[in-house]
Amino acid sequence: MHVRVNAAISADGKLSTRRREQIAISGDDDFDRVDRLRAESDGVMVGVGTILADDPSLTIDSAARRESRREQGRDESPARIVADSHIRTPPDATILDDSAETYLLVSEAAPSDFVAQMEEQGATVIATGENRADLPGAFEELESHGIERLFVEGGGEIIFSLFENGLVDRLSVFVGSLVIGGRDAPTLADGDGFIEDFPQLELDGVERVDSGVVLEYDVPS
Amino acid sequence: MHVRVNAAISADGKLSTRRREQIAISGDDDFDRVDRLRAESDGVMVGVGTILADDPSLTIDSAARRESRREQGRDESPARIVADSHIRTPPDATILDDSAETYLLVSEAAPSDFVAQMEEQGATVIATGENRADLPGAFEELESHGIERLFVEGGGEIIFSLFENGLVDRLSVFVGSLVIGGRDAPTLADGDGFIEDFPQLELDGVERVDSGVVLEYDVPS
Repeated sequence: MHVRVNAAISADGKLSTRRREQIAISGDDDFDRVDRLRAESDGVMVGVGTILADDPSLTIDSAARRESRREQGRDESPARIVADSHIRTPPDATILDDSAETYLLVSEAAPSDFVAQMEEQGATVIATGENRADLPGAFEELESHGIERLFVEGGGEIIFSLFENGLVDRLSVFVGSLVIGGRDAPTLADGDGFIEDFPQLELDGVERVDSGVVLEYDVPS
Repeated sequence: MHVRVNAAISADGKLSTRRREQIAISGDDDFDRVDRLRAESDGVMVGVGTILADDPSLTIDSAARRESRREQGRDESPARIVADSHIRTPPDATILDDSAETYLLVSEAAPSDFVAQMEEQGATVIATGENRADLPGAFEELESHGIERLFVEGGGEIIFSLFENGLVDRLSVFVGSLVIGGRDAPTLADGDGFIEDFPQLELDGVERVDSGVVLEYDVPS
């Protein structure tokens, strides 16, 4: 599986405020870039924190891109995938609507009534790992469902987990021209953090977009 | 006073690990860039957290730059300035040596024995604000000592305070090609963080340096 991570951060590395409120970091050109990357993928993944904070649809915005996918015999929008070890996805989350396939990655400890409820709403539940979804195992399962190109849109907990598991192939970062600040504000990569063996990146693209800049990194395996 | 803030961060916005251990983020070309900016300044400022974590000298590395300053009738190295509201500067800190002038910015609550000890070691103590150094007031005092161009090298607490007080004129950020991660790792701007009226920046320089990129921002007042 090829995994690309994308995020928009402030100049000080924040995804949003300490209140987890979504704020405008990028602009229309970056939204269009993200929409294109979504359209090129088989699955769009976020952590459940992003579902709770923003309730996104994760579908393709551009009608032309949806049409082009249909012409290729693909679904209009890629599958939505939520990493949800602690089964916090609310039953009325937008990603559970029928506009695209939905996968929830949970742990084997997920109660069967949660799984049943989510499957009743049309989601496919993938249970791996004892108390926390095992990402490498879950990704193998996603591949067996035809998801070869995965596009990860955050937040900071899932992005850190992916780097921790050596699962990231590409990283693109839109750095917006503002300061958010806050020692408790979410950043591009949260989790426990590394103290050694820091994942090394290769910067292979620098492009000004909107009032900020997009940094493109290869992540050598 | 003209205030330029500079910092080197990982691609995820961190200044160092959650253990506050200094790690290599940039390289020789960026060190040289920072040395040049130091040499162009009248004062180099850090928060006391940086003194405790790294015990830096904050002096000019390049002999040619020191010589050039001497020829201009200036001190070899700019003054060292430490924001130290809670009087945590240790008596054996390197910035208290006699290789350059040293100023400590403390609050009016600073005990007189701390002030006396620091002055005995040759530092000038500037006391403003009731329980926390009042930065605008302290900066006026620094100006009266001839410090017109201030170069701030972090960390995240003092950088946030400067933005909070509207005191930043320029921001330069070296973004290194690695991931540090960690919800508790220090970032470019920590503090409480903004929840509205985010300081807006104008990106006016993007340059690849070492294996990363330097982003230069103007901060319109």
